Amino acid sequence: MDSEPRWLKELTTADSLRLLGSVAFGRMVFNQHALPAIRLLNHVVDDDAVIVRTHLGAAALGTVGMVVAYEADAIDAHTRLGWSVVVTGVARLVTDPDRVARYEQMLRPWVREQMVHVIRIDPEIVTGYEMLDGADF
Amino acid sequence: MDSEPRWLKELTTADSLRLLGSVAFGRMVFNQHALPAIRLLNHVVDDDAVIVRTHLGAAALGTVGMVVAYEADAIDAHTRLGWSVVVTGVARLVTDPDRVARYEQMLRPWVREQMVHVIRIDPEIVTGYEMLDGADF
Repeated sequence: MDSEPRWLKELTTADSLRLLGSVAFGRMVFNQHALPAIRLLNHVVDDDAVIVRTHLGAAALGTVGMVVAYEADAIDAHTRLGWSVVVTGVARLVTDPDRVARYEQMLRPWVREQMVHVIRIDPEIVTGYEMLDGADF
Repeated sequence: MDSEPRWLKELTTADSLRLLGSVAFGRMVFNQHALPAIRLLNHVVDDDAVIVRTHLGAAALGTVGMVVAYEADAIDAHTRLGWSVVVTGVARLVTDPDRVARYEQMLRPWVREQMVHVIRIDPEIVTGYEMLDGADF
């Protein structure tokens, strides 16, 4: 493994959302019982919003109406090059039946749980950066 | 990609910390200006504690004395098998010069920033799970 430190390059909002949409899973970050919490989820990006599904009783369901962060990254463990994107916004329950049906098609559950809710995070803050080699500048 | 959902298997604390120590980076989760925040960091696990380094002015430095979560995972994007571990505990500044020197040797910065602080998270809560194929049961 190369021990040279990397440079951070800030990404635009458009590039950040494009990269977020290019991967299948990420991490929802929220408060639970006044403690910081994080859950691995799979997602899609639709119309610049992050869409996830959750099941009854899941911690993520308690985030509805609250501000959450959603993070995804792709870092090569050997070269240490890659990117990280964080979206911050209010988690909202998707209730429109057509949209729910559409998202249920787009988002197949990874685990054997009955996913009964669709949550949408409309980004209010989008931050992203790329870790680059010195040579990339 | 196989669309069969996976099974979640809970990991013991010992297995969780061993897996966390087997990877080079993870994500610190904390509150910043009353909003959930997450930062990618590299870490080592020493004596069952998570050790990270941070630079002056970094958001992570504001977590000293506060409860944070630290998450790492290794999920295969194709098979969707892997694990995720979350450690929750108070972030403390390491001030003992011998320990600081030792951790500075163990933890080489990934980015071109002068890392001036070492933070230690002593786990109060450790949760981890593995995503398994039905066949693994």
